[in-house]
Amino acid sequence: MDKVDTSFIPDLPVSGPLSVYRKRANFDWKRLRLIFEKEQGLRIKYKVWRRLENDPLFAHASCTLPMDEQKRLAAMQVNKMKQLELVPKEIESLSFSAKTKYLMFINEALASYSASLSVKIALGVGLFNNAIRAMGTEKHTKYIEAAWNREIITCLAVTELSHGSNTKRIRTTATYDPSTQEFVVNTPDFEAAKCWVGNLGKMATVAMTFANLITADGENHGLHGFLIPIRDPKTLLSYPGVLVGDIGEKCGLNGIDNGFVVFTNYRIPRDNLLNRTGNVTPEGVYESVFAEPGKALGAALESFSAGRIGIMQESANTLCSAAVIAVRYAAVRKQFGPERQGEEMAIIEYQLHQYRIFPCLAAACVQKIAVEELTNTYLEIIARSQADANGFDVLTQNAAEIHAIISASKPHITWSARDAIQEAREACGGHGYLRAAKLGQMRTDHDPLCTYEGDNNVLGQQASNWLLRQWSAKELETPIGSIKFLEQRQQLLKLQYEQLVQQTSIDSFEFALTCYEWLLCHLMAHTSAHIEAQLAAGVHRFEARNNSQVAGAKELSLAYAEYFALSRFVGHVRQLSVAQPYARVLRLLYDVYAMWLLEKHMTTFYVGGFAVGAAFSTAVQQRLLQSCARLKDVAVSVADAIAPPDFALNSVIARADGLLYENLQNEFMTNAGAFQRPEWWRDVIIPQPQEKSKL
Amino acid sequence: MDKVDTSFIPDLPVSGPLSVYRKRANFDWKRLRLIFEKEQGLRIKYKVWRRLENDPLFAHASCTLPMDEQKRLAAMQVNKMKQLELVPKEIESLSFSAKTKYLMFINEALASYSASLSVKIALGVGLFNNAIRAMGTEKHTKYIEAAWNREIITCLAVTELSHGSNTKRIRTTATYDPSTQEFVVNTPDFEAAKCWVGNLGKMATVAMTFANLITADGENHGLHGFLIPIRDPKTLLSYPGVLVGDIGEKCGLNGIDNGFVVFTNYRIPRDNLLNRTGNVTPEGVYESVFAEPGKALGAALESFSAGRIGIMQESANTLCSAAVIAVRYAAVRKQFGPERQGEEMAIIEYQLHQYRIFPCLAAACVQKIAVEELTNTYLEIIARSQADANGFDVLTQNAAEIHAIISASKPHITWSARDAIQEAREACGGHGYLRAAKLGQMRTDHDPLCTYEGDNNVLGQQASNWLLRQWSAKELETPIGSIKFLEQRQQLLKLQYEQLVQQTSIDSFEFALTCYEWLLCHLMAHTSAHIEAQLAAGVHRFEARNNSQVAGAKELSLAYAEYFALSRFVGHVRQLSVAQPYARVLRLLYDVYAMWLLEKHMTTFYVGGFAVGAAFSTAVQQRLLQSCARLKDVAVSVADAIAPPDFALNSVIARADGLLYENLQNEFMTNAGAFQRPEWWRDVIIPQPQEKSKL
Repeated sequence: MDKVDTSFIPDLPVSGPLSVYRKRANFDWKRLRLIFEKEQGLRIKYKVWRRLENDPLFAHASCTLPMDEQKRLAAMQVNKMKQLELVPKEIESLSFSAKTKYLMFINEALASYSASLSVKIALGVGLFNNAIRAMGTEKHTKYIEAAWNREIITCLAVTELSHGSNTKRIRTTATYDPSTQEFVVNTPDFEAAKCWVGNLGKMATVAMTFANLITADGENHGLHGFLIPIRDPKTLLSYPGVLVGDIGEKCGLNGIDNGFVVFTNYRIPRDNLLNRTGNVTPEGVYESVFAEPGKALGAALESFSAGRIGIMQESANTLCSAAVIAVRYAAVRKQFGPERQGEEMAIIEYQLHQYRIFPCLAAACVQKIAVEELTNTYLEIIARSQADANGFDVLTQNAAEIHAIISASKPHITWSARDAIQEAREACGGHGYLRAAKLGQMRTDHDPLCTYEGDNNVLGQQASNWLLRQWSAKELETPIGSIKFLEQRQQLLKLQYEQLVQQTSIDSFEFALTCYEWLLCHLMAHTSAHIEAQLAAGVHRFEARNNSQVAGAKELSLAYAEYFALSRFVGHVRQLSVAQPYARVLRLLYDVYAMWLLEKHMTTFYVGGFAVGAAFSTAVQQRLLQSCARLKDVAVSVADAIAPPDFALNSVIARADGLLYENLQNEFMTNAGAFQRPEWWRDVIIPQPQEKSKL
Repeated sequence: MDKVDTSFIPDLPVSGPLSVYRKRANFDWKRLRLIFEKEQGLRIKYKVWRRLENDPLFAHASCTLPMDEQKRLAAMQVNKMKQLELVPKEIESLSFSAKTKYLMFINEALASYSASLSVKIALGVGLFNNAIRAMGTEKHTKYIEAAWNREIITCLAVTELSHGSNTKRIRTTATYDPSTQEFVVNTPDFEAAKCWVGNLGKMATVAMTFANLITADGENHGLHGFLIPIRDPKTLLSYPGVLVGDIGEKCGLNGIDNGFVVFTNYRIPRDNLLNRTGNVTPEGVYESVFAEPGKALGAALESFSAGRIGIMQESANTLCSAAVIAVRYAAVRKQFGPERQGEEMAIIEYQLHQYRIFPCLAAACVQKIAVEELTNTYLEIIARSQADANGFDVLTQNAAEIHAIISASKPHITWSARDAIQEAREACGGHGYLRAAKLGQMRTDHDPLCTYEGDNNVLGQQASNWLLRQWSAKELETPIGSIKFLEQRQQLLKLQYEQLVQQTSIDSFEFALTCYEWLLCHLMAHTSAHIEAQLAAGVHRFEARNNSQVAGAKELSLAYAEYFALSRFVGHVRQLSVAQPYARVLRLLYDVYAMWLLEKHMTTFYVGGFAVGAAFSTAVQQRLLQSCARLKDVAVSVADAIAPPDFALNSVIARADGLLYENLQNEFMTNAGAFQRPEWWRDVIIPQPQEKSKL
């Protein structure tokens, strides 16, 4: 730890209102930063932020731009990417994992600057290319290169107007015509119009589209991917047979042109079928590469996991930004105090305020590490599957578990970020409602992450289904080890707080983890029994599962995600050998987050018999409040260690200089037309019939 | 009930996708509507909505307008009010209560159409005039008339840049100069600039301002209200000595021109002091009408309660709108189903979905009634105080309790609406993220209600402080009766679920109420003991109170608000004599809401010893889920009974015709420039160096 190079991290102001708290930290925030994020990634991010800041095209607008201008700007910025040289030429020589991580770091930095920009790149390059790789063959690789070079502008057209989560019910058809060796694409009615497709509204020239492949004999071979030309890349005019439009204004992310498209007898070449798992011969015979096309599709869809990992990384950063804004504001804002006429207290000193915002700070720090751990696990699995000639099988063995982890974690972290943004907004009072505070935009831009790339409530059920299958299975299959504790399920189910606290001090990392192991076993046993009882009573399995969500499955899935994050954080921290002050602050953050999470499950701990009487609840709450109190003096420095630079954070109430009121004054004084009489002043004065005294 | 006239309520479509569920209701939704809202109020609201709908100035914009245009439009709309003749001439002959309720009904209808419009009127007329009445004397009544006639445009300037909640620390000064008989107003520095003042940014000609009154001898007599001219009403140009500007863009409510102002040696006439509670003689001698100017100020501030009541009414309506959108969408949207190829199920059929959205629906219905009950109680107290020559004393006797009720209820209902909007947004998936779905605008416009007119977290502490005082007091003072149950505190504290359920069936209204009575007693006892223990250990009372918020005071305040709403709902319903189908649906709504609320306090019920083992939790959850299942078939008709007309609801995904996809298609197809190639298309195409094959 002693030889860490922190010189590439820009300094923060040494004086100013935040220095009161900064001086209390007995550690170097830059070193702490390098515990939360690896040096390589951080260097890349600072490079991205610097380059954006130095280019006027990326200067922040001082007010919400008109929708069309937002779209133009996002498109211009995407095009500028190449010129900024964020991706080094040698990246192609890197391993898959190294390359992916490099691109992920860039995405994280871009996303913390502008969600629209990041999504636009992800849609136009990352997800499209992943889909081609997963579903296409050799002949489609030219599209990957073309997308990189912006020769084509791409999008993924999966969702239809009446089908989002239930992608299997997509109704667009691609019927093979052997006479011309083409597919004829049709949208049966407007309910099957592809819609909400990002990049499609104004720009996409090619859409990777899911449609039912139908052979000339009328047989439907299920969903396949097709590359469908949408617009002429030289003119951006759409092709005949393609009715494509923009769906209009959304709550946020208006830099993205979400579109809809209706196909009418639209012909595309046979080669535009992505034929890795199924093909049609020139004569029109369907050939499946796998025996079970459903599973083939599942494997193909698995490539979308990269999108969910990206969402988790972005959400961890959003958590960081929300926490930083709340903490810096709370350290400077003073209100009330013990004496009527005496000094007022910074609101960070209030216990209730700490209880509101420190769990966000702790969540941000723990999730920064946990999401990176999850990413590494995910990339290792993909890399192993690629190295192995039999790669697809290796992937399948691990796929179920990693899919369950991601399906539980994506909802958990996106909801955590959603709640943290709202808490930060309220904790910053009226000033938090100012556009320049950034929280409003964060809220609207983050919000759709709870819905897309798998609706949180639907996705969570995939995790709980896997967990319940493991619970009932004869042999435990947990190659990643996320539920290895199930081997002790019999002992765990019998555990009670009184007994645990004698074996395992609440001071230890294990305490919360063991509580979670009891909780997960209990929820699996309880939910499983709930389903079984219904099945025994003749209820359809579909219904029995639905009717077990409230009774346990939903909580199970979230608890699993929380346990995974906490245990990965602990695993990571234990590998580090850091000096005492750093170990202490990591410990405090863990305690705040773990105790706060345990509080959310308190009812289950009591109802399930783990705890009786006030002892457990009191112990958890006391430890939470004590840890908050201890964290208070160093919270500003912890926030510094996860804060993006002012340019990316872009919040007038949370600049690193802590000059809250000076920055607000500047904002008020300089916003466009602040002191100007409105042009329309004549329209709003009601002429008075007679002379009045000056009122 | 039989002679109810429902003919003034517009019909809903008899066919269409929602009719599937509408047909299942065994009651008339119009009659149910008249249970939730009194006929008089409903007639007024429909009149307001009709008049707005018929005037093109009130047509909804099809996209978010530029900020300046939003302000212009809101100002034009305010000016149009008089011409719309919403307020009848005879209103001045009505009693205070009747008049206030009339204006409240109009405000509710306006607010459900546009939050900016409603806030602008409230700031410019209602709150200003209330403040004049509370703090001014005879000579100031001309301002009330002038504000009504729009001769002056008004605002309330209380908050300063560095002081929001802690109004007592406001630093603006008004120093009396006997030589000219004027007050000289000064803003000591920018931190004391009045800011966030609605109506001030572009328009106000007069500001009701709080400032420290200082006499020539240098003595500070504390905060007083002053009427300060800001702009020339003939030109809207500001006066010398007044630096006034607009604070710029906010997350929402951009029709309001929130402003800031700095006064520099700005002179105003002596008569501009609002001198009901304190005066300065021409010679400069300060005369206090009350012995304790602090209490005088408190009484004056009490007039702001009207604003909080208005917020609660608007929030109840927002709850209704969010619930209506979620329920109508859920009844039409189908996704997944028991059979792979069979019919898909409407998402309203899923238990988890019911659990997510029905509590919002039930909360909306219960709160509609509870808020009206609270309003009536509030108005009765004011009316009695006016009728009595000794009115001020009568007011004071009841003021503490009503203030506690409002201070607990405003946070509770604004948070409930906040959560309902978010749940509805997510429950409507991607389509809920469309601007035309309305939920995004509802979220941003509702959000500041959690902060202004008393920050929720600060306000809640005023309620818990009152409750804890009552707990410790020798004599219980509850003229309104909201905590009459404390008379049985000894028995209540000993109560346990097993015993309660034998005396009081879970089928009865009393069951949940009695659970709440135990809960409130427990929280008061627990929090009180927590504070006492700290005091005994030498902790300052200020700190002891702060450190008891998490341990109990915060939950106490919310539980009190919930109990009040539930008990007032029960009281109201019991007075009605309605036919069985109506009684049944009111019962279901109560059960859903009450059980859902009880679930939120489950931990306290267990930790506090009210419940042991799974029985209580299971009973509550089962009743909740059963009630949801029973509510399902009639939920659409219940939503109809609380829905504003399509014009006011203005959600493309929740029109009364239920034509979800047709309406979305229309929206997509007709939004401005949907099919247009962007003007900037040349800027975003990267010219390719060589000919490429068509990709």
